[in-house]
Amino acid sequence: MTALANGWVKRVSITPPSLEDNTADADRLERALMAILKTEMVDIALPVLVNLPELLRKGNYNLRCVLFKDHKKWCLSGISSDDTDRLTGLAVDLGTTTVVLRLLDLSTGLVLAESSFINPQISIGPDILTRLHFAEKEKGLYELNRLIIEGLNRAIAELCKSCKISPSGIYLISVAGNTAMTHLFLGLNPRWIIREPYIPVTNRPGCISARELGITVNKSAGVFIFPNTGSYFGGDLLAGILYSGLNRDEKTAILVDVGTNAEVVLGNKNWLVACAGAAGPALEGGVTKMGMMAGPGVIDRVYTDPETGLFSVSTIEGLPPRGICGSGVIDLAAVLFLSGIIDIRGKFVPGACKGRLKEKDGLKHFVLVPANESAEGNDLSISQADIDSLMRSKAAMYTILETIASYVGISLSELSTFYVAGTFGSLINPRSAITIGMMPDLPEGTYKSIGNSSLEGAAMILKDCGLMDEIDAIRNSITYIELNVNQDFMNRFSAARFLPHTNLSLFPSVSSDGPVKS
Amino acid sequence: MTALANGWVKRVSITPPSLEDNTADADRLERALMAILKTEMVDIALPVLVNLPELLRKGNYNLRCVLFKDHKKWCLSGISSDDTDRLTGLAVDLGTTTVVLRLLDLSTGLVLAESSFINPQISIGPDILTRLHFAEKEKGLYELNRLIIEGLNRAIAELCKSCKISPSGIYLISVAGNTAMTHLFLGLNPRWIIREPYIPVTNRPGCISARELGITVNKSAGVFIFPNTGSYFGGDLLAGILYSGLNRDEKTAILVDVGTNAEVVLGNKNWLVACAGAAGPALEGGVTKMGMMAGPGVIDRVYTDPETGLFSVSTIEGLPPRGICGSGVIDLAAVLFLSGIIDIRGKFVPGACKGRLKEKDGLKHFVLVPANESAEGNDLSISQADIDSLMRSKAAMYTILETIASYVGISLSELSTFYVAGTFGSLINPRSAITIGMMPDLPEGTYKSIGNSSLEGAAMILKDCGLMDEIDAIRNSITYIELNVNQDFMNRFSAARFLPHTNLSLFPSVSSDGPVKS
Repeated sequence: MTALANGWVKRVSITPPSLEDNTADADRLERALMAILKTEMVDIALPVLVNLPELLRKGNYNLRCVLFKDHKKWCLSGISSDDTDRLTGLAVDLGTTTVVLRLLDLSTGLVLAESSFINPQISIGPDILTRLHFAEKEKGLYELNRLIIEGLNRAIAELCKSCKISPSGIYLISVAGNTAMTHLFLGLNPRWIIREPYIPVTNRPGCISARELGITVNKSAGVFIFPNTGSYFGGDLLAGILYSGLNRDEKTAILVDVGTNAEVVLGNKNWLVACAGAAGPALEGGVTKMGMMAGPGVIDRVYTDPETGLFSVSTIEGLPPRGICGSGVIDLAAVLFLSGIIDIRGKFVPGACKGRLKEKDGLKHFVLVPANESAEGNDLSISQADIDSLMRSKAAMYTILETIASYVGISLSELSTFYVAGTFGSLINPRSAITIGMMPDLPEGTYKSIGNSSLEGAAMILKDCGLMDEIDAIRNSITYIELNVNQDFMNRFSAARFLPHTNLSLFPSVSSDGPVKS
Repeated sequence: MTALANGWVKRVSITPPSLEDNTADADRLERALMAILKTEMVDIALPVLVNLPELLRKGNYNLRCVLFKDHKKWCLSGISSDDTDRLTGLAVDLGTTTVVLRLLDLSTGLVLAESSFINPQISIGPDILTRLHFAEKEKGLYELNRLIIEGLNRAIAELCKSCKISPSGIYLISVAGNTAMTHLFLGLNPRWIIREPYIPVTNRPGCISARELGITVNKSAGVFIFPNTGSYFGGDLLAGILYSGLNRDEKTAILVDVGTNAEVVLGNKNWLVACAGAAGPALEGGVTKMGMMAGPGVIDRVYTDPETGLFSVSTIEGLPPRGICGSGVIDLAAVLFLSGIIDIRGKFVPGACKGRLKEKDGLKHFVLVPANESAEGNDLSISQADIDSLMRSKAAMYTILETIASYVGISLSELSTFYVAGTFGSLINPRSAITIGMMPDLPEGTYKSIGNSSLEGAAMILKDCGLMDEIDAIRNSITYIELNVNQDFMNRFSAARFLPHTNLSLFPSVSSDGPVKS
């Protein structure tokens, strides 16, 4: 693997000192780095100073230097006189539910290992709001901070062990998380994030010493925390924009992180507009009784068998079905609609259900997998209430998209690319999402699933020192709009509460597909 | 006491946030500070961020901020929403033998308390060289660092207790010490300071977090360490220049720190030239058997009683004499010379000794205080060898002064002011120093004793944020010259080994005073 063209590791060679030039070691090195980096100041961490004189002489005045920079200044985080030393960096996607780590070689960009762990703060509460309220109790913030830092330290130790490097070989860490998680990670009081006018402690935490945060990596390692734009647009999304390249393209595109809270950025190289809004848990499979997170035996696809014309499901790892995840629910709704089992209002059409409709607890249920075919011997079914909930969520999602597009005066049909971010997003079948009118009727090639874009953005920054300024530029160019639930919004929402939409001309491909043409 | 005009404490009032302006707390504060300080970046320490949201609201968006700056950047070290809080700073003279502390109020500049303690590293070795060698042993540097940091922490705790403030009320520390002591204080390897080509680890340590150094004051306190100019011109001298004002004057003046190692700076507002050289311990009373550091019962003045024409001594606190300190030895030599007891070569003239000359261990001794008048019942005397040693030291001192003056092409007689720094320096009687030809024959008003100029300089920086740039300017304008012991130097040295000097025209006031006119 060749060295990164514009990485954080710089090879520096300095003139040995003499009686004529007896400038101190640190000052010589700083002088050399300032010339290479074309900057006026380089901060040298104290632990680096401690090792500097010996390594400088050992390396015969040649060193590899690990640098870092936030919006304020360049810092020297590590030095090595031995070319066989592995200088590594750690990218962290600091999720509310799951924390994902990626260890990479800072010289080559090579990925060394990846791992993830459940955010231990889940023991306090699965959702962020519960945690934020807990943070207001005595020692609450301390406890939440301790949980995440200790969890991270354990995960770092294991990850390093798995590829036989020492945690002290980690010199840089980049962390992308939402504003609330970032606050808990830094031990900052999140109290005013959730109270009008919704003020974070900081928008740009910048680069902080790992030691100060209690993270057990190299003593002089720096931790870059992605900035946020206010309380509801966090560093995870900013990392996602960086990864998608939305901000570098002439053409206008959109980036959507689909979830309970839908986060949306629309823009191009000249401007970026963002908003976020509650879509409800239905999109993540969070309402139906059979809903669960993606995992072995979970239904992730529902389709009509082209030969039999019957419903088929596929499960993760091909195991007997035990539940359904969000992408499966969206597929299911699309299939139900296309086969006429639900009508344009999302209501069951009993005559079309071919004996699969059952009454349970006073509610109509459509049985997707009968008990004898399921993993745990019970019917896997979706109720009318589940579908109603999904209708509201998909309508909210589409309304958010329409609102942001109308805010900037463009039509959704003009989008060059529709980036779908997040693990959940990456599983969605765009065709199904279009069929139910959750996403706009764009040519399928327009949709691009970009996976864990927060982690990818965090990893990108470890490989290219030119991107720091880009992050600042992204942050500065975002206009965050508050979604006001006004009459306009409600009108759009009402119109979107049909399959696929009241205005069929918005969904020509669906009209030509299914029952709606009749 | 009124507030300091240009102190580090700034009163900041910011607009409360609103839905229209929901910038984070830290970013609002930074914005306000950047405007006040006319700078592009202000670093906010993490512990300040932790307290920021609460204090900001408690103070109704009015805060007092303690700032600090090194040559690189402004840092916010502390905030307070309560005007009755005392925001304090600590100036430290980090001496090899004695460490002196001064606690002051950062808002008013008022001195709250002072104390000093013996540098605990003395347990390793009284002189710096022994310590530097010890630092090369395993754990040696760690131990030396631990000793000074723990000593400082104890002294801080006591000092704070004495004026009933908490150590957490200390937000800024400024430290002035020689290059070696600074390295031990920072835990930096001093190995290459004492080996050709004499390279410190750093010339400009700048501002380091107190917490990182293990100093128990406010968590976010910053420690500014005075820079050095190479291994032999330390931050203590730089602080001394700042205090003397040498660098601000049109006229050329000199600053001399007299001691075993004589440190000299010559210059004016346009240029500064510095050198240092060994003068030997004789000037500090370090050779004669009766020599000791200044203290109760120690002879600090020797003079001829104008009535009796006999020698008289004065002791510190007027107690019976038990020894003599450096300034007493210089007085004694002057009196012996003026009364003809020693000749121009510094040799005893037996006929002039009036029975005070005794033979002991094969050496001639002049008895200054007979046994029955001394505190401990023994003669206090000075031997021919002691005087020979003093002759060499005073000659070395004068030669250093002549050499530096000749380097810049001026005569010592042109000096507008002769600053004498250091506790020892402040005790020297300039008239005696002139008489023995240790210092040039300038009008007595030219001599100014400035005491512990290192501590004073360190305290100055805590009271005026404009001085940081001045420190950098001083450092950058110093030309340090190595004293080469070449033929020129030796010629000057030989000429200076007479009382007051071979060239009597250099000392007209002495020629008219004493026996040399005959």
